[in-house]
Amino acid sequence: MTTIVHTDPKTNQELMDFLGSRARNAAAQLAKLNPCVKNDALLAIAKAIDDRAAEIAQENQRDIDKAPEYGLTDAQIDRLRLNDKRIGEMIMALRQVAELEDPVGSIFDMKTRPNGLRVGRMRAPIGVIGIIYESRPNVTVDAGALCVKSGNAVILRGGKEAFHSNTILAKIMNEAGSGAGLPANAVQLVPTTDREMVGLMAKADAFIDLIIPRGGKGLIERVVQEATIPVIKHYDGICHVFVDAHADLDMAVMIAVNSKTQRPGVCNAMETLLVHKRVAEEYLKRLALTLQKKGTEVRGDARTRELIPWANEATLEDWSTEYLDNILSVAVVESFDDAVQHINRFGSRHTDAIVTRDYHRAMRFLREVDSACVFVNASTRFSDGGEFGMGCEIGISTDKLHARGPMGLVELTSAKFVVFGDGQVRQ
Amino acid sequence: MTTIVHTDPKTNQELMDFLGSRARNAAAQLAKLNPCVKNDALLAIAKAIDDRAAEIAQENQRDIDKAPEYGLTDAQIDRLRLNDKRIGEMIMALRQVAELEDPVGSIFDMKTRPNGLRVGRMRAPIGVIGIIYESRPNVTVDAGALCVKSGNAVILRGGKEAFHSNTILAKIMNEAGSGAGLPANAVQLVPTTDREMVGLMAKADAFIDLIIPRGGKGLIERVVQEATIPVIKHYDGICHVFVDAHADLDMAVMIAVNSKTQRPGVCNAMETLLVHKRVAEEYLKRLALTLQKKGTEVRGDARTRELIPWANEATLEDWSTEYLDNILSVAVVESFDDAVQHINRFGSRHTDAIVTRDYHRAMRFLREVDSACVFVNASTRFSDGGEFGMGCEIGISTDKLHARGPMGLVELTSAKFVVFGDGQVRQ
Repeated sequence: MTTIVHTDPKTNQELMDFLGSRARNAAAQLAKLNPCVKNDALLAIAKAIDDRAAEIAQENQRDIDKAPEYGLTDAQIDRLRLNDKRIGEMIMALRQVAELEDPVGSIFDMKTRPNGLRVGRMRAPIGVIGIIYESRPNVTVDAGALCVKSGNAVILRGGKEAFHSNTILAKIMNEAGSGAGLPANAVQLVPTTDREMVGLMAKADAFIDLIIPRGGKGLIERVVQEATIPVIKHYDGICHVFVDAHADLDMAVMIAVNSKTQRPGVCNAMETLLVHKRVAEEYLKRLALTLQKKGTEVRGDARTRELIPWANEATLEDWSTEYLDNILSVAVVESFDDAVQHINRFGSRHTDAIVTRDYHRAMRFLREVDSACVFVNASTRFSDGGEFGMGCEIGISTDKLHARGPMGLVELTSAKFVVFGDGQVRQ
Repeated sequence: MTTIVHTDPKTNQELMDFLGSRARNAAAQLAKLNPCVKNDALLAIAKAIDDRAAEIAQENQRDIDKAPEYGLTDAQIDRLRLNDKRIGEMIMALRQVAELEDPVGSIFDMKTRPNGLRVGRMRAPIGVIGIIYESRPNVTVDAGALCVKSGNAVILRGGKEAFHSNTILAKIMNEAGSGAGLPANAVQLVPTTDREMVGLMAKADAFIDLIIPRGGKGLIERVVQEATIPVIKHYDGICHVFVDAHADLDMAVMIAVNSKTQRPGVCNAMETLLVHKRVAEEYLKRLALTLQKKGTEVRGDARTRELIPWANEATLEDWSTEYLDNILSVAVVESFDDAVQHINRFGSRHTDAIVTRDYHRAMRFLREVDSACVFVNASTRFSDGGEFGMGCEIGISTDKLHARGPMGLVELTSAKFVVFGDGQVRQ
């Protein structure tokens, strides 16, 4: 297959080919870099962001000014804003990624075969990663840093509402990065927010090895429909806590309250609480007191509403809704099996927890719940690359293949087989 | 999403939904089975195949009789034939899979976090696997066995030329399997060879979690274009051996001859030999003597044809052709870098080997060649799940994500995060 690459792209397709071929060149060079070059470049980028914070704030203000035009809510505008604290966090993230162990080239699972061949796996970059995301501009820096550190070139396609912020951040990453030894175009931002580019990226199999869409269901479904490249989906989290008949109810109150209210607007917050009927009365009455103090809206099934009179009615839609808000749907279930079935049916395969003292049920829950992260006796809020000890994360995959759950540096690599021989031939 | 499933499917779409929903049910049950039930079922299937060998041979003969109608070559007819030896091999494969360690439920990478949470990964079945393949009917049994053992239901779509053979084998697997405790429909063969079913399978995201196409480039590209499900491609092998300037030339002759001629018709046989110009004269003159004895046709570049006068001319097409025959393309390269560049440009990312005594070049080759399997000083013919110590394999993935290289039981599972707490909540 030959693709003619235009150096002065005029159409979106020409632009895609242009960005793609530049990324392929960058990827070939990135794959060979020593860890210290990549780390120095990340630190240089951190310094440049610090030095140019005023410029970043200024470009960010242009996005904020335009936000009402795009109909953004106050919460969305807040997520868009790059204040000193958030710029500081981006700098921290870069320094943290620089300190993580470099996965590229590491060899594992080495075995010696009877004929003396030594067979192992070696971590190698994937190549070119395409990331399609909405709103938060810090993703530009976090995802860029993780891709570069894992030896991959990246093409970023951010949302229109963060366009100026993303543009200045990508520009600084490239200028500071290439000054410190990164190949040119290691990190590229698609310089248009024309929606056609999403489809073109998803089909650019000559140039992109993996597409990661992060954001709303509509965006992800569109990418999946159009893609001819592997996609790792990052759907949102409809997380459950199941309070078993054998739960320690004090612990179950603590875990449910923390899972729901510690930070309701994030993907690992609980959206639905399931309670075994044998403990429903005692448990829900105790829980209701705390939830009321926390100002949580409860939407319950019939049995829940008997026990919590101030609860609203939950509709079928509630069971598959990610509120990202201080709202909780609650159902009383007949059995352990019903709880597992509810989770596998309505959940988003993100993170689900059981509270129980029963060993057998704990082990069954871990096996039978078909989710990326399954917890026993802990808050769903721990579902996070940092909390799992992986350093930063590029997101939380709700897919089953390649990366499931928090996706860090290792998940941005492939594992090839390496074979060390001394002249072996097959008989 | 609600799909109405017809119990008496009349269209291909209804048939797909019917097979798919049966597979989903089977998968939910398979995921919970103990290893001993699955192993007993595999042994029962092995026995049934042995008992019913005459019936299998009879159905196979129907395919053989029809082969001329489909225009099959003698080699293709040979691959289709199920004689006593091949039936014996299927029985052996089933017994071997039964003996392999069951990956499902195994926990690895367990770490204790500062807050006492224990975080690990647990192997879980993927769910429903779709396998689309051509010709060889033993794939029905091998792939079926590997999927069942790894707790997955499987929908098999074989080629029309092996339809009767595949049908009887799938029937025996289901009858003997469910008699020994497997859920009904753990292994289903698509009961039509209508090509529309390939596209419908590739889009059946409600029912299938992973599609594995094995076969020709046309088939695989079609699946990739149409799929809305993750695909792990099994392209054929355009494998290279690079004889470096620092090679032990005796070893290099042995490895090249073995890689090409030990079994030319398989995917891990060498198709292209690259020779560093500094050793080309001495090496190619020695190699030519052996290749001539082995009856190998050589297609060379200009320099090769100077050194091997009886070689034919290689065209651009030769560098990207999988001969699957006793034909070898040969090029003399200017440098190590040129060799790596040739492999990454023309290869199929399957298996490539370097012969060298130079440590630095050996290590660079392993890192810079972008293939599933990279070898130093060994025949490409070792690229095989059995030779790598993985037991059986479902094929050799030429993709980079999830499974790269020989794909065995472990690669038919996902790895979810499991977290063991004792009441932790997030601060």
